[in-house]
Amino acid sequence: MKDTLSAYDTLMAHQRTTEALASVAGRTGWDQETMMPRGSAPQRADEMAALEEVLHARRTDPRIGEWLDAADPMDEVQTANLREIRRNYERTLKVPGDLAAEIARVTSLAQGKWARARENEDADAFIPVLAEVVRLRREEGAALAEGGDPYDALMQDYEPGGHASAMAAMFDEMRSRLVDLRRRALDGEPAPRLSGTFPKETQLMLAREIAEAFGYDFQRGRLDLAVHPFSSGSGLDVRITTRVDEADPFNCLYSTIHEVGHAAYEQNVDAAHLLTPLGRGVSMGVHESQSRSYENQMGRSEAYCGWLYGRMRDLFGEIGVASERDFYRAVNAVRSGYIRTEADEVNYNLHIMLRFDLERALIRGELEADGIEAAWNERFEADFGFAVDRPSNGFLQDVHWSVGLMGYFPTYSLGNLYAGCLMAAARQELSGIDAALAKGDPSPATTWMCDCLQRFGGLRPPVETIENATGSPPSAGPLLDYLEAKFGDLYP
Amino acid sequence: MKDTLSAYDTLMAHQRTTEALASVAGRTGWDQETMMPRGSAPQRADEMAALEEVLHARRTDPRIGEWLDAADPMDEVQTANLREIRRNYERTLKVPGDLAAEIARVTSLAQGKWARARENEDADAFIPVLAEVVRLRREEGAALAEGGDPYDALMQDYEPGGHASAMAAMFDEMRSRLVDLRRRALDGEPAPRLSGTFPKETQLMLAREIAEAFGYDFQRGRLDLAVHPFSSGSGLDVRITTRVDEADPFNCLYSTIHEVGHAAYEQNVDAAHLLTPLGRGVSMGVHESQSRSYENQMGRSEAYCGWLYGRMRDLFGEIGVASERDFYRAVNAVRSGYIRTEADEVNYNLHIMLRFDLERALIRGELEADGIEAAWNERFEADFGFAVDRPSNGFLQDVHWSVGLMGYFPTYSLGNLYAGCLMAAARQELSGIDAALAKGDPSPATTWMCDCLQRFGGLRPPVETIENATGSPPSAGPLLDYLEAKFGDLYP
Repeated sequence: MKDTLSAYDTLMAHQRTTEALASVAGRTGWDQETMMPRGSAPQRADEMAALEEVLHARRTDPRIGEWLDAADPMDEVQTANLREIRRNYERTLKVPGDLAAEIARVTSLAQGKWARARENEDADAFIPVLAEVVRLRREEGAALAEGGDPYDALMQDYEPGGHASAMAAMFDEMRSRLVDLRRRALDGEPAPRLSGTFPKETQLMLAREIAEAFGYDFQRGRLDLAVHPFSSGSGLDVRITTRVDEADPFNCLYSTIHEVGHAAYEQNVDAAHLLTPLGRGVSMGVHESQSRSYENQMGRSEAYCGWLYGRMRDLFGEIGVASERDFYRAVNAVRSGYIRTEADEVNYNLHIMLRFDLERALIRGELEADGIEAAWNERFEADFGFAVDRPSNGFLQDVHWSVGLMGYFPTYSLGNLYAGCLMAAARQELSGIDAALAKGDPSPATTWMCDCLQRFGGLRPPVETIENATGSPPSAGPLLDYLEAKFGDLYP
Repeated sequence: MKDTLSAYDTLMAHQRTTEALASVAGRTGWDQETMMPRGSAPQRADEMAALEEVLHARRTDPRIGEWLDAADPMDEVQTANLREIRRNYERTLKVPGDLAAEIARVTSLAQGKWARARENEDADAFIPVLAEVVRLRREEGAALAEGGDPYDALMQDYEPGGHASAMAAMFDEMRSRLVDLRRRALDGEPAPRLSGTFPKETQLMLAREIAEAFGYDFQRGRLDLAVHPFSSGSGLDVRITTRVDEADPFNCLYSTIHEVGHAAYEQNVDAAHLLTPLGRGVSMGVHESQSRSYENQMGRSEAYCGWLYGRMRDLFGEIGVASERDFYRAVNAVRSGYIRTEADEVNYNLHIMLRFDLERALIRGELEADGIEAAWNERFEADFGFAVDRPSNGFLQDVHWSVGLMGYFPTYSLGNLYAGCLMAAARQELSGIDAALAKGDPSPATTWMCDCLQRFGGLRPPVETIENATGSPPSAGPLLDYLEAKFGDLYP
């Protein structure tokens, strides 16, 4: 008995150090996006590769296998820790250390090259970079899949238990109802637009105020600027970034609420799980369910828009819309557009479907990097009905492929689906959500999320996490019903 | 032949990864001082301990001993790399891994506690922290000294080849001439003081302008705010910090020039030495010779003060002094004061002597942490002639002891001494230094420093580094001659 206990404790001590080093690696990534001087990139690539080398060695340490075999879990938490450690151990064993280190080095440099290519509208500069990233990720996918589908294998990093075929089925279920909704919206009366002056510092002040109201703890986090907003870190140090467009305050405000959804999930995991495999969000899909609930279902609700309208008029004066209802319509305007992160709730998943099909083709070898721009532009015009005008509005718009995140995009749609299930359940249980949102107070809904989902971290696998919170298996129905009700009202 | 070459290359590959990880650890320290949210401190302590554990394991890897024995250096660079690796290897072998990890953990937390104690003037809150740090460093010093003097042993980390007895002799040589100079200055006509408005943002703008003129490369660095200014990093990512006092612009400007001296040394090491033991300044004493040359010998020269007077009047309007000569006197005012970092060139080394004696007594067990405040206050009054009024003006003023840097303080005086030697040599070789400084251009002097010293990094041991640049063994004479000439003129 003493021996098995000791194996678990020894394993967890090893794991804790690994988690602490991974936390440092994550923050080094944050630094790269927010603080790092440009000329430091080559050295940073060596640093990331060194961290990756150390992490890989720790994660593939053969003693982990021995400890896992000897450990005898005493409760649900220990069982879950062993499950997560085993899953990650078996994954890392399949990828050669040299390959892992090369991926870290190449993607560290690639991200800077992507940012410059995007800034300069220089598609050609990015193609060879993408080719290299794709080559490495294909190799990794093949090593992980052991004869199976390499794209499915890569997806496991973001959504354990997820499968491309299930994603494809989910997209099939969504597509026609979303296309119908979009047609109706684009044929309807155009939504009003804001006008006015939205100074950067005022936007950031309001973003901080809203972040706090949505439960973000600045004592254990900070807000900075980055090209592509993100949340980074777990436990006691969870940082978010945003960006500011002085012509469009919604860009800053809603990307902040979105990242706060991610960050609150990380900040609210039970302290007992700190620096363990359970001490963070369980998957990207469940993570995105939080950011989407916060951003869309709460932040873009009619109730919250009513409050935000008043607050923005306090801060910015006249903003060019005449009523709360018009403001609500402006916030939820359905429009044709190039950019995924700026897309409305109706178009958003259609953007994901495009990326899902293209990256799946890239990883399966059905498409090469030098064909990506043409493939993107052709598919975009077919799906959205107009042509891409420049690379930064096309395949260069997202950071993901530069850092090798193929398999990640579909989890955004899964997050929307989960958000639909979660908020339907919360609204069924609680009656005061909208009354509070109308006062700028999302806390009834965010507290429900914390109590029913966030605090458990990685205790249960993704689908069980949603089921535990909602009482039902996840499905696309609640999201589609919500979207049809909301946009049916907005575009009658 | 092939085998020995291979041993060297294998050793250097191992070392390169270690250097990259150490660079990450250094930047994590920078983050802690500039960016980290306060509530993150407990998790950060675990992260620093994990990094320290990994670094310690890599630095004590027994294969290093084998590679060192097998390696056959082919040139001066290889010989120097092996020398540095051997010195560090033999050092780390002597310190148990548990102790190294505990020091990292305790000092990581202690720094935050020091900052709060200093802010709250709460000496009692810091005493138990200091006691713990002293206990650990005594233990480390004893392990390193192997029966010798533990303080001498700790000094080797900052000044390889340095000895406390030599420091004591240097201080004896300096003391009487400095005390004479101080008496003469304090008895003389008081220097004028600036008055006016010095907005934070304008100070920072000027600090950036001056940093660039002194050769700091913002493409491979950045300037942020911190409680205690410092420079951090090597090679392609060297960051500096400063602080701003709106009543005293010299605080920001001269601490910036000081840190630029450190940072330029790091940025100017030959690129071939990147991520090797030679890729950074060779010792703290030599480092301080750069910061002191930049700050005092260039930045506080009569020529440069003439330019700075005009520039500050451009930016701040009337600043309360009537002429270039009065501005020069204001910059170099000799006054009684509590704070080492604000001390003039005459008083500065007297502040160091106090710390040197106290920290030597702490490490040798002749003084305990709970006696430090009384000992400091008593000694201060004896040396400076007036009483300490509050802890932040006394033993809580410096960050060093909280992070365990006992043995570091004397290198500041050694740096002043080296700076005296270097600038005397530069002025002998070059005639245009002051003419350029009078135009705000320190580049003749900084270029000489780069060519004669900085670019070599750790190629030669400290004393040889100075000798190579100046042609003579270092001595206190040039510094004391310089101070007597300068302050004899200022206080006739």
